[in-house]
Amino acid sequence: MKKKWLMMLLAMVTLMAYPVSAFAAEGPTSPELQIGLDTAFTFLAFILVFFMQAGFAMLEAGSVRMKNAGHVAGKTVLTLAIASLCFWAVGFGLGFGNGNNFFGTEGFLYGGDTAAASFESLAFSGVTLNVKFLFQMAFAAVSLAIVSGGMAERAKLSVYIIFGILFSIVIYPVVAHWVWGGGWLAELGMQDYAGSTVVHLTGATAAVVATILLKPRLGKFNKEGKPVIIPGHNQVFTVLGVIILWFGWFGFNPGSALSPLGGFFGHVAVTTNIAAAAGGLAALIASWLYFGKSDIPAMLNGVLAALVAITGACAFVEPWAAILIGFIAGAFTFMTSQWLERAGLDDPIYAFSVHGIAGMWGAVSTGLFATPELVEIVGVGKAGLLYGGGFHQLGVQILGVVGTFIFVAVLSFIILYVMKMVIGLRVTEEEELMGLDISEHGTYGYPEQMKLIADSESKSLNK
Amino acid sequence: MKKKWLMMLLAMVTLMAYPVSAFAAEGPTSPELQIGLDTAFTFLAFILVFFMQAGFAMLEAGSVRMKNAGHVAGKTVLTLAIASLCFWAVGFGLGFGNGNNFFGTEGFLYGGDTAAASFESLAFSGVTLNVKFLFQMAFAAVSLAIVSGGMAERAKLSVYIIFGILFSIVIYPVVAHWVWGGGWLAELGMQDYAGSTVVHLTGATAAVVATILLKPRLGKFNKEGKPVIIPGHNQVFTVLGVIILWFGWFGFNPGSALSPLGGFFGHVAVTTNIAAAAGGLAALIASWLYFGKSDIPAMLNGVLAALVAITGACAFVEPWAAILIGFIAGAFTFMTSQWLERAGLDDPIYAFSVHGIAGMWGAVSTGLFATPELVEIVGVGKAGLLYGGGFHQLGVQILGVVGTFIFVAVLSFIILYVMKMVIGLRVTEEEELMGLDISEHGTYGYPEQMKLIADSESKSLNK
Amino acid sequence: MKKKWLMMLLAMVTLMAYPVSAFAAEGPTSPELQIGLDTAFTFLAFILVFFMQAGFAMLEAGSVRMKNAGHVAGKTVLTLAIASLCFWAVGFGLGFGNGNNFFGTEGFLYGGDTAAASFESLAFSGVTLNVKFLFQMAFAAVSLAIVSGGMAERAKLSVYIIFGILFSIVIYPVVAHWVWGGGWLAELGMQDYAGSTVVHLTGATAAVVATILLKPRLGKFNKEGKPVIIPGHNQVFTVLGVIILWFGWFGFNPGSALSPLGGFFGHVAVTTNIAAAAGGLAALIASWLYFGKSDIPAMLNGVLAALVAITGACAFVEPWAAILIGFIAGAFTFMTSQWLERAGLDDPIYAFSVHGIAGMWGAVSTGLFATPELVEIVGVGKAGLLYGGGFHQLGVQILGVVGTFIFVAVLSFIILYVMKMVIGLRVTEEEELMGLDISEHGTYGYPEQMKLIADSESKSLNK
Repeated sequence: MKKKWLMMLLAMVTLMAYPVSAFAAEGPTSPELQIGLDTAFTFLAFILVFFMQAGFAMLEAGSVRMKNAGHVAGKTVLTLAIASLCFWAVGFGLGFGNGNNFFGTEGFLYGGDTAAASFESLAFSGVTLNVKFLFQMAFAAVSLAIVSGGMAERAKLSVYIIFGILFSIVIYPVVAHWVWGGGWLAELGMQDYAGSTVVHLTGATAAVVATILLKPRLGKFNKEGKPVIIPGHNQVFTVLGVIILWFGWFGFNPGSALSPLGGFFGHVAVTTNIAAAAGGLAALIASWLYFGKSDIPAMLNGVLAALVAITGACAFVEPWAAILIGFIAGAFTFMTSQWLERAGLDDPIYAFSVHGIAGMWGAVSTGLFATPELVEIVGVGKAGLLYGGGFHQLGVQILGVVGTFIFVAVLSFIILYVMKMVIGLRVTEEEELMGLDISEHGTYGYPEQMKLIADSESKSLNK
Repeated sequence: MKKKWLMMLLAMVTLMAYPVSAFAAEGPTSPELQIGLDTAFTFLAFILVFFMQAGFAMLEAGSVRMKNAGHVAGKTVLTLAIASLCFWAVGFGLGFGNGNNFFGTEGFLYGGDTAAASFESLAFSGVTLNVKFLFQMAFAAVSLAIVSGGMAERAKLSVYIIFGILFSIVIYPVVAHWVWGGGWLAELGMQDYAGSTVVHLTGATAAVVATILLKPRLGKFNKEGKPVIIPGHNQVFTVLGVIILWFGWFGFNPGSALSPLGGFFGHVAVTTNIAAAAGGLAALIASWLYFGKSDIPAMLNGVLAALVAITGACAFVEPWAAILIGFIAGAFTFMTSQWLERAGLDDPIYAFSVHGIAGMWGAVSTGLFATPELVEIVGVGKAGLLYGGGFHQLGVQILGVVGTFIFVAVLSFIILYVMKMVIGLRVTEEEELMGLDISEHGTYGYPEQMKLIADSESKSLNK
Repeated sequence: MKKKWLMMLLAMVTLMAYPVSAFAAEGPTSPELQIGLDTAFTFLAFILVFFMQAGFAMLEAGSVRMKNAGHVAGKTVLTLAIASLCFWAVGFGLGFGNGNNFFGTEGFLYGGDTAAASFESLAFSGVTLNVKFLFQMAFAAVSLAIVSGGMAERAKLSVYIIFGILFSIVIYPVVAHWVWGGGWLAELGMQDYAGSTVVHLTGATAAVVATILLKPRLGKFNKEGKPVIIPGHNQVFTVLGVIILWFGWFGFNPGSALSPLGGFFGHVAVTTNIAAAAGGLAALIASWLYFGKSDIPAMLNGVLAALVAITGACAFVEPWAAILIGFIAGAFTFMTSQWLERAGLDDPIYAFSVHGIAGMWGAVSTGLFATPELVEIVGVGKAGLLYGGGFHQLGVQILGVVGTFIFVAVLSFIILYVMKMVIGLRVTEEEELMGLDISEHGTYGYPEQMKLIADSESKSLNK
C-alpha cells in the first residue's frame, strides 16, 4: 500500500505543479506513449462522432410520420456510406491536403498513413494520420446528415444520393479547408473549435436551400396559408436521438483537442455539457410561455441548438458564458423556428433553426466571450468584445459566417436547381401521400402498423 | 519484426514482474502522461455513465403505457439538464468541497480546474478536476433518474422539476459527502465503491416516498385491492434500455478506479459483468417458477438489480462472490417486487425493488464477502464476516444503509408533503386517463398510434 | 505557449521519425504506463463489442413480426447472461487455456488475473488478463447472438437456452482455440484478424443447421413452394441496430490490435469503415437492379456482410482492397440470400448469408489480397495470391473455412437432432400463430398495439 500512496502523492504534487490555467504538458519522456495515447483518445472521439448518426437516425425518424420512417432512418446509413467513400476519394484531399487558400490539391484516394506528407496542416498533434482521417470523415458525415433533414418526407432518394455525393466531394471540404485546412479564414484567425460554422452552418445552409426549392409538404399550410402542425410519430425515438447526439458531442467538442495531455479537453467537455443543459431548459420555458404547455420536441431542439452554438465556442469561453450561450441558443432557436414556419418555410426537423441559426450564433459568440487566457491556450484568433478584444474578432467571426453561408447557399442552389430542372427534386403527390417508404423502397418501415392504419381508414370510408 | 518481439517480451516480463494481486503501478516516469491517461480513462467512464440516461429513457418509456411514453422519455433529458445545472451551481461544492463531516462548504458555481483547492478530498488521483466534476455530475444525474421512475404516469411535470432541483441541490450531495466527500461514513470506513448506497439507495428512497405519497395509478388495484398488471407498452425499448444500462455500468463501476494503471479496474469489470449475468438468470428462473412462464421484464429487472448490488461490492469481492451477490439480488428483487405490489405499493418501474432493496443488499454484501487482499488494494474499510473480519464491517455497512435511508426518506417526505399541500403532486383523474403526453405537453408522443386507439375505441362505443 | 509549440514540434519530429509503414513502437520507457494504456484501449474495445448486443437486439427485433418482438429482443439479454457465465466457467479455459492443438485444458472457473499462467497463449501484449478475458467473452457472446437469429420466430426458448449453453461451452471455444489459442489452424498460419471465421462463420453455421432442422415458419412458402415475403415490423429498429453494430465493430476489428501503440489499429479502422460503406452501396444497387426498388433491409445487410468479410482481412489488406472486399460481400450476400430463400431456406434475419457466406468470403479474401508488408506487421501467415504469395495462404484459408464449417455443422447437428427427438425444437402451430411473446412469456412485447390488431381482426371477422 505504501507505494500506492507514494504514487498518489506524486500525482497530487504533479497536479499542483501544473497550473491548470496553462494546460500545457511539458515534454513527456515517451513520445511513443504520447502518440499512442493521443491516437487512442482521438479514436474514442471519432467513434463518438460516428455514433451521432444513430442519433440523427432516431431524431429524424421520430420527427416524421410513420409512412416515411423507414426511408428517413435508412438514409442515415446511406449518409455514412456516401460520406465514407466520398471523403476517402476526394474530400480529405480537398479539405485537408496541401493546396491554396481555398482548397487542397493533394492527397486524394487516401491510401493510409504513408500519405502524411500531403497533410502537413494536420501535423500539429501526435495523432496518427489514419485516425485523423477517420475523425474528419465523421465530421463530414454529420454535416451531410443535417442536409438530409431538410429534404425529409418529399425529396426523391436519388436526389439525396446525387446531392449528398456532390456535397461531400465539393461543398463541405472547401469550407473545412477555409477554416481548418489552412485556408483564408484560418489565416484571418477565425475561431471555430469544433465546427459551429464548418459542420453545422454548412449542412444547415444546404438544407435550407433544399427546403426552399422543394417547397412545403402537402398539407403543411392550410388554405389561409397558416402552418398546420404535422407532429413526428415517435417522441421516444426523438428523445433517444437527442441523448445519443448529446453523448456523441463529447467526441465532437472535447475530442477536437486531439489529446488528453494537459487536460484541456476537460474544460471543453464542461462548457459543452452545461450549455446543452441550459439550452434545453431555455427552450422548455420558452415553449411553456408561448404555447401554455411545456413542449418536449421544443426542449429537445433547445438542447441541440445549444450544442451547435457551443461547438464553435466551447474552448474559448468560461462555464458561465457557456450557460449564457446555450440559454440564448435554446430560446432563440425556439422563437426562430416558429417565425420561419409562419413565414412559409416547412423545415420538418427544424434543421435550419437548430443547426443554422444556432450555428451562426455560436460563431458570433466567441467574438463576444472569448477570454484572452483561453485564446492563448488554443492559439487561434483574439479575445472577444467583452474581454477587451474590441470588434476585431467579432468582425472575423461575422465574415466567416457570411462567407460560408454565401458559398454554400450559392453552390447548393446551383446544384439543386439544375437537378430540379433535369430530374425533378420531389416525388409525385400520389407518392408523397402514400409515403416514401412504399413509394421509394417498395415496403413500409412499419408494415403491420401501416396495415392497421389502412384498415381503420377503409372502415371509416365504408361507413 | 524483431523490435516488435522485443517489445512483446518486454511487456511479458513486465506483466510477470507485476504481481497482479498487488495491482499497484510503481512510479511511472512520466507524470504528464499518467495524468493524461487517467483523465482520458475517467472521461470514458463519465460518458458511459452519462449515456445511462439513454438507458433510463428507453427502460422507463418502454415500461409505461403509450399515452405517457413521450412524457416519461422527455423527463430523462430534463433530468440531465437539471442535474447538470444544479450540480454545477451547488451540488459539487456541497458534496465534494471542503467542509465538515456532513456537507461541503466551498466550491459552489464550479468555475473550472482553478477551483482545485476547494476539492482536496478528490485529490487522490491523477485526474484533472474538470473530468472529476463531470464524472460526479453524471452520478448525480443517475440518482435523479431513479427518482423519476417512482413518479411515472401520475405526477405533475412541475412536481418532478421542483423536487428534482431540490434533490440535486440538497439530498444527493449530502449523502455523497458522507461516503465519498470525507464525511462521517467515510471516516467509519464504509465501503461503497461506486454507489449502491450513495447513488441507488438514495434515488430509490426518494422514489418510494414519492410513490407512497402519490398513491397508486388509477386501475392498478381492483375492487378487492388486488394488483392488476399494467404492462409496459414496448419490451424492445426496455431491452434496449437494459443493455444500454449494463453497457454504461462499465463506466460506473470500473471507471470508479479513476485510472487504468495497475489494471485493477479490470477486476471490477469482471465482477460487475458476471454479477449482472447471474442476476438476469436468477430472476428468469424465479419468474418461471412463480408465474409458470419466463418473464422478460423480470429478467431485465434481475440484471439491473444485480448491477445495483454489485456496484458497491465490485472492488471488494472475488468473481465467485460476485455471482452469488448478483444471483441473490436478481431472485430477491423479483420476489420483493411481487410482495410490495401485493402490499399496495404501485411502483411502475420497480424503482424501489431494483435500486433500493438491491442497493441495500449490495451495501451489506461487502460486510460478508470483502476479502482482506482486495480491501487492502482499495484502502477502504476492513474484510467481511466470511473472511475473518468479524461483524465490524457488516455493522458499518448496515449503519450506512440505515442512516442514508432515514436521511433521504425524511427529507424527501418533508419536501414532497409540503408540495402536496401547496400545489398537489398528482394530475387530475381526467388528465391521468387521457395520459400525461397530451395533458402535460399538449401532444401525444405517438400521435398516429394514439389516433388509431381512439378510433378503435370510438368504434367499439358506437356498436 | 512556447512550451506548447515545443511539444508539438517534438510530436511532429517523432511522428516523422516513426515510419508509419513499420508501425512498431520502440521500447517505451514506462512499462506501467504502456500496460495501463493498452489495457484501457482493449477495455474500450471490449465495451464496444459488448454493446453490439444492443445492435443485435434492435436488428433482430426489427426484423421479425410484432408478436415475436419482445421474445427476440429479450433473448439478446439472455445471450449475454449465458455467454458471460459459460465463458467464465468453461469457455475461456477451453478456448485460450494451455492445452493441445484442439482445445485448452486449463483455466476453468476463471478466477482473475492470478490465473495468468494458464493463459500463456494470450501473453503477447501488455493487456491485463482480466480485460483480455472480457474482450474474448464479448466475442463469444457475438457468435451466440448470430445463432439466435437462425432460430427466430419458431424455436422454443428452452431450446435456445440449452443449445446456447452447449454452444458457449463446447463449440465456440474449440474453434477459437484452433485459430487464436495456439491450435492447429494457428500453427498453419491461418489469417483471421478479428474473427470472420472464428466468430461469424461459427455462429452462422450453427444458425443454418438450426434453420434447416426447425423448418420454415408457417406461411413462408406458398402452395407452389415459392417464398412469401414476411417483412420485419420495424425498419427504424433495424437501422438503429446496424448503426450500433457498425459502431461496435470499431471495437471488434481495431480493438483486436490490443494496443494503440504504433497506431496500427488506425489502419484496421480505416479498412473496416470503408468496406462497410462499399458493402451497403453494393447491396443497395443490387436490390435496385433486382427488385426495381432500392431496398433498405438489403442495404443494411450489405453493410453487415461487408463488416463480416473485412473482419478477418482488415489488418492484412490495403484500403482499395477493403473497398473491393466489402463491395463483393454486399452484392454477393444480397444474391445468395435470394437464392437460398428460393431454395427453400427460411432464415428470418439472413444469418447464414450475412455471417456465413460473407464470413467465408472474408476468410478467403486474405488469401488473395494480403500484402507482404501488412502480413509482416501482424506476424501471421503469408502474402496473398495477388501479391506473389502463390496459392499457399489461399489454401490455408480455405482449409480453415472448411474445417470450421464441418466441425460446427456436425456438432450442432448432433446436439440439435438429439434435442429434436427428445424435447422438440419448435413451438406448436397454435403457439407460432399467436406469437412467441404470449406463448413463451405470457405477455405481449407490445400489449397495446397487439390489442389493436386483435380488435381490428375481430371486427373484420364480424362483418
